[in-house]
Amino acid sequence: MATSDDIRATLDRYRECFTASDREGWLALFATGATVEDPVGSDIRTGHDEIAELWDFAHSMAASIELRAAGPACVAGHEAAFPFTIINDFDGTQMALDVIDVMTFTDDAKIATMRAFWDMAAMYTLG
Amino acid sequence: MATSDDIRATLDRYRECFTASDREGWLALFATGATVEDPVGSDIRTGHDEIAELWDFAHSMAASIELRAAGPACVAGHEAAFPFTIINDFDGTQMALDVIDVMTFTDDAKIATMRAFWDMAAMYTLG
Repeated sequence: MATSDDIRATLDRYRECFTASDREGWLALFATGATVEDPVGSDIRTGHDEIAELWDFAHSMAASIELRAAGPACVAGHEAAFPFTIINDFDGTQMALDVIDVMTFTDDAKIATMRAFWDMAAMYTLG
Repeated sequence: MATSDDIRATLDRYRECFTASDREGWLALFATGATVEDPVGSDIRTGHDEIAELWDFAHSMAASIELRAAGPACVAGHEAAFPFTIINDFDGTQMALDVIDVMTFTDDAKIATMRAFWDMAAMYTLG
Protein backbone atom coordinates (compact mmCIF):
# COMPACT_ATOMS: atom_id res chain seq x y z
CA MET A 1 0.00 0.00 0.00
CA ALA A 2 1.21 3.48 -0.84
CA THR A 3 0.80 5.90 2.06
CA SER A 4 -0.40 9.47 1.73
CA ASP A 5 3.22 10.60 2.20
CA ASP A 6 4.40 8.27 -0.61
CA ILE A 7 1.80 9.79 -2.94
CA ARG A 8 2.72 13.35 -1.93
CA ALA A 9 6.38 12.55 -2.65
CA THR A 10 5.42 11.39 -6.15
CA LEU A 11 3.46 14.62 -6.71
CA ASP A 12 6.38 16.76 -5.50
CA ARG A 13 8.72 14.94 -7.86
CA TYR A 14 6.21 15.29 -10.70
CA ARG A 15 6.40 19.07 -10.41
CA GLU A 16 10.17 19.11 -9.86
CA CYS A 17 10.96 16.92 -12.88
CA PHE A 18 8.62 18.84 -15.15
CA THR A 19 10.09 22.19 -14.16
CA ALA A 20 13.69 20.89 -14.37
CA SER A 21 13.06 19.45 -17.88
CA ASP A 22 13.93 15.98 -16.50
CA ARG A 23 12.04 13.93 -19.09
CA GLU A 24 13.21 10.50 -17.95
CA GLY A 25 12.68 11.29 -14.26
CA TRP A 26 9.14 12.43 -15.02
CA LEU A 27 8.30 9.40 -17.19
CA ALA A 28 9.61 7.05 -14.47
CA LEU A 29 6.81 8.26 -12.18
CA PHE A 30 4.23 6.49 -14.37
CA ALA A 31 3.45 2.79 -13.97
CA THR A 32 3.70 0.40 -16.93
CA GLY A 33 0.54 0.77 -19.00
CA ALA A 34 -0.47 4.01 -17.27
CA THR A 35 -3.15 6.11 -18.94
CA VAL A 36 -3.25 9.88 -19.38
CA GLU A 37 -6.25 12.00 -20.43
CA ASP A 38 -4.90 15.53 -20.85
CA PRO A 39 -7.08 17.54 -21.07
CA VAL A 40 -10.18 15.72 -19.79
CA GLY A 41 -12.27 14.85 -22.86
CA SER A 42 -9.32 14.23 -25.19
CA ASP A 43 -8.05 10.85 -26.46
CA ILE A 44 -6.42 8.68 -23.80
CA ARG A 45 -2.67 8.01 -24.09
CA THR A 46 -1.51 4.61 -22.83
CA GLY A 47 2.01 3.61 -21.79
CA HIS A 48 5.33 5.42 -21.56
CA ASP A 49 5.80 6.00 -25.30
CA GLU A 50 2.48 7.78 -25.75
CA ILE A 51 2.90 9.74 -22.52
CA ALA A 52 6.37 10.81 -23.71
CA GLU A 53 4.71 12.35 -26.80
CA LEU A 54 2.71 14.60 -24.47
CA TRP A 55 5.93 15.75 -22.77
CA ASP A 56 7.62 16.40 -26.12
CA PHE A 57 4.65 18.38 -27.39
CA ALA A 58 4.47 20.55 -24.25
CA HIS A 59 8.20 21.22 -24.28
CA SER A 60 8.23 22.05 -27.99
CA MET A 61 5.82 24.92 -27.33
CA ALA A 62 7.81 27.04 -24.89
CA ALA A 63 11.39 27.89 -23.96
CA SER A 64 10.69 26.95 -20.35
CA ILE A 65 7.80 25.46 -18.39
CA GLU A 66 7.26 25.72 -14.67
CA LEU A 67 4.68 23.77 -12.64
CA ARG A 68 3.97 25.84 -9.56
CA ALA A 69 1.88 24.39 -6.69
CA ALA A 70 -1.38 26.35 -6.35
CA GLY A 71 -2.63 24.78 -3.13
CA PRO A 72 -2.45 21.57 -1.12
CA ALA A 73 -2.80 18.18 -2.78
CA CYS A 74 -5.92 16.34 -1.55
CA VAL A 75 -5.16 12.64 -1.12
CA ALA A 76 -7.90 10.02 -0.49
CA GLY A 77 -6.67 6.43 -0.32
CA HIS A 78 -4.85 5.63 -3.58
CA GLU A 79 -6.23 8.67 -5.37
CA ALA A 80 -5.33 12.35 -5.33
CA ALA A 81 -6.30 15.70 -6.81
CA PHE A 82 -3.74 18.44 -6.91
CA PRO A 83 -3.88 22.02 -8.12
CA PHE A 84 -1.02 23.80 -9.86
CA THR A 85 -0.35 26.60 -12.27
CA ILE A 86 1.57 25.80 -15.44
CA ILE A 87 3.65 28.75 -16.57
CA ASN A 88 5.01 28.82 -20.10
CA ASP A 89 7.63 31.31 -21.17
CA PHE A 90 7.05 32.39 -24.78
CA ASP A 91 9.94 34.68 -25.70
CA GLY A 92 9.78 36.49 -22.39
CA THR A 93 5.99 36.59 -22.07
CA GLN A 94 4.73 34.37 -19.26
CA MET A 95 1.41 32.65 -19.96
CA ALA A 96 -0.27 30.88 -17.06
CA LEU A 97 -2.94 28.19 -16.92
CA ASP A 98 -4.59 26.77 -13.80
CA VAL A 99 -4.76 22.98 -13.80
CA ILE A 100 -6.05 20.31 -11.44
CA ASP A 101 -4.65 16.83 -12.04
CA VAL A 102 -6.65 13.86 -10.74
CA MET A 103 -4.63 10.66 -10.38
CA THR A 104 -4.81 7.08 -9.15
CA PHE A 105 -1.70 5.30 -7.88
CA THR A 106 -0.28 1.78 -7.72
CA ASP A 107 0.85 0.14 -4.47
CA ASP A 108 4.35 1.57 -5.03
CA ALA A 109 2.98 5.12 -5.53
CA LYS A 110 3.48 5.22 -9.28
CA ILE A 111 0.84 6.98 -11.37
CA ALA A 112 -1.68 4.48 -12.80
CA THR A 113 -4.10 7.01 -14.31
CA MET A 114 -4.01 10.77 -14.76
CA ARG A 115 -6.78 13.14 -15.89
CA ALA A 116 -5.95 16.83 -16.29
CA PHE A 117 -8.68 19.47 -15.80
CA TRP A 118 -7.97 22.71 -17.68
CA ASP A 119 -9.45 24.95 -20.32
CA MET A 120 -7.24 26.81 -22.81
CA ALA A 121 -9.76 29.66 -22.81
CA ALA A 122 -8.81 30.34 -19.18
CA MET A 123 -5.13 31.06 -19.99
CA TYR A 124 -3.85 34.43 -18.78
CA THR A 125 -0.74 36.59 -18.87
CA LEU A 126 1.38 36.88 -15.73
CA GLY A 127 2.26 40.30 -14.33
CA MET B 1 -24.95 21.71 -23.66
CA ALA B 2 -23.89 23.43 -20.47
CA THR B 3 -21.26 26.10 -21.05
CA SER B 4 -18.25 26.66 -18.84
CA ASP B 5 -20.04 29.72 -17.40
CA ASP B 6 -23.15 27.63 -16.59
CA ILE B 7 -20.98 25.14 -14.72
CA ARG B 8 -19.13 27.89 -12.83
CA ALA B 9 -22.50 29.38 -11.81
CA THR B 10 -23.53 25.99 -10.38
CA LEU B 11 -20.26 25.78 -8.44
CA ASP B 12 -20.69 29.32 -7.06
CA ARG B 13 -24.19 28.47 -5.92
CA TYR B 14 -22.97 25.20 -4.41
CA ARG B 15 -20.64 27.12 -2.09
CA GLU B 16 -23.21 29.85 -1.38
CA CYS B 17 -26.01 27.45 -0.46
CA PHE B 18 -23.76 25.33 1.71
CA THR B 19 -22.46 28.33 3.61
CA ALA B 20 -25.95 29.89 3.94
CA SER B 21 -27.40 26.59 5.29
CA ASP B 22 -29.78 26.55 2.30
CA ARG B 23 -30.44 22.80 2.26
CA GLU B 24 -33.12 22.82 -0.46
CA GLY B 25 -31.16 25.21 -2.69
CA TRP B 26 -28.10 23.00 -2.41
CA LEU B 27 -30.02 19.76 -3.12
CA ALA B 28 -31.66 21.34 -6.17
CA LEU B 29 -28.22 21.60 -7.79
CA PHE B 30 -28.08 17.80 -8.13
CA ALA B 31 -29.72 15.98 -11.07
CA THR B 32 -32.24 13.20 -10.46
CA GLY B 33 -30.31 10.02 -9.68
CA ALA B 34 -27.06 11.91 -9.06
CA THR B 35 -24.27 10.02 -7.27
CA VAL B 36 -21.97 11.31 -4.54
CA GLU B 37 -18.76 9.64 -3.28
CA ASP B 38 -17.64 11.74 -0.29
CA PRO B 39 -14.88 11.08 0.54
CA VAL B 40 -13.39 9.20 -2.42
CA GLY B 41 -13.29 5.52 -1.42
CA SER B 42 -16.50 5.58 0.65
CA ASP B 43 -19.88 4.10 -0.31
CA ILE B 44 -21.67 5.92 -3.12
CA ARG B 45 -24.89 7.79 -2.29
CA THR B 46 -27.50 7.90 -5.05
CA GLY B 47 -30.38 10.34 -5.42
CA HIS B 48 -31.59 13.34 -3.47
CA ASP B 49 -32.66 11.45 -0.33
CA GLU B 50 -29.27 9.83 0.21
CA ILE B 51 -27.43 13.05 -0.67
CA ALA B 52 -29.60 14.91 1.86
CA GLU B 53 -28.32 12.51 4.56
CA LEU B 54 -24.80 13.74 3.83
CA TRP B 55 -25.92 17.36 4.30
CA ASP B 56 -27.71 16.52 7.54
CA PHE B 57 -24.67 14.67 8.90
CA ALA B 58 -22.29 17.53 8.05
CA HIS B 59 -24.60 20.15 9.56
CA SER B 60 -25.16 18.10 12.73
CA MET B 61 -21.42 18.25 13.46
CA ALA B 62 -20.84 22.00 13.67
CA ALA B 63 -22.66 25.19 14.59
CA SER B 64 -21.71 26.73 11.25
CA ILE B 65 -19.98 25.55 8.08
CA GLU B 66 -18.34 27.75 5.46
CA LEU B 67 -17.12 26.62 2.04
CA ARG B 68 -14.39 29.08 1.03
CA ALA B 69 -12.97 29.01 -2.52
CA ALA B 70 -9.29 28.04 -2.41
CA GLY B 71 -8.45 28.66 -6.06
CA PRO B 72 -10.01 28.72 -9.51
CA ALA B 73 -12.35 25.96 -10.66
CA CYS B 74 -10.89 24.03 -13.61
CA VAL B 75 -13.62 23.18 -16.12
CA ALA B 76 -13.10 20.76 -19.03
CA GLY B 77 -16.18 20.08 -21.15
CA HIS B 78 -18.95 18.78 -18.87
CA GLU B 79 -16.56 18.05 -16.00
CA ALA B 80 -14.88 20.21 -13.39
CA ALA B 81 -12.51 20.06 -10.45
CA PHE B 82 -12.68 22.79 -7.87
CA PRO B 83 -10.69 23.45 -4.70
CA PHE B 84 -12.15 24.87 -1.52
CA THR B 85 -11.58 24.92 2.20
CA ILE B 86 -14.38 23.72 4.45
CA ILE B 87 -14.38 25.55 7.76
CA ASN B 88 -16.34 24.13 10.68
CA ASP B 89 -16.99 26.15 13.80
CA PHE B 90 -16.93 23.90 16.87
CA ASP B 91 -17.90 26.08 19.83
CA GLY B 92 -15.66 28.90 18.64
CA THR B 93 -12.77 26.77 17.41
CA GLN B 94 -12.43 26.87 13.62
CA MET B 95 -11.29 23.60 12.05
CA ALA B 96 -10.34 23.68 8.36
CA LEU B 97 -10.03 20.94 5.77
CA ASP B 98 -8.82 21.33 2.17
CA VAL B 99 -11.07 19.61 -0.35
CA ILE B 100 -11.13 19.19 -4.11
CA ASP B 101 -14.49 18.18 -5.57
CA VAL B 102 -14.53 16.50 -8.99
CA MET B 103 -17.89 16.62 -10.75
CA THR B 104 -19.65 15.78 -13.99
CA PHE B 105 -22.65 17.79 -15.17
CA THR B 106 -25.84 17.29 -17.15
CA ASP B 107 -26.77 19.40 -20.18
CA ASP B 108 -28.57 21.85 -17.88
CA ALA B 109 -25.51 22.19 -15.60
CA LYS B 110 -26.88 20.10 -12.75
CA ILE B 111 -24.45 17.84 -10.88
CA ALA B 112 -24.60 14.26 -12.23
CA THR B 113 -21.70 12.84 -10.21
CA MET B 114 -19.52 14.22 -7.43
CA ARG B 115 -16.36 12.75 -5.86
CA ALA B 116 -14.76 14.60 -2.95
CA PHE B 117 -11.00 14.34 -2.35
CA TRP B 118 -10.02 14.96 1.28
CA ASP B 119 -8.31 13.27 4.18
CA MET B 120 -9.47 13.83 7.76
CA ALA B 121 -5.84 13.47 8.92
CA ALA B 122 -5.08 16.72 7.09
CA MET B 123 -7.54 18.81 9.17
CA TYR B 124 -6.00 21.85 10.88
CA THR B 125 -6.95 24.66 13.24
CA LEU B 126 -7.44 28.17 11.83
CA GLY B 127 -5.98 31.33 13.36
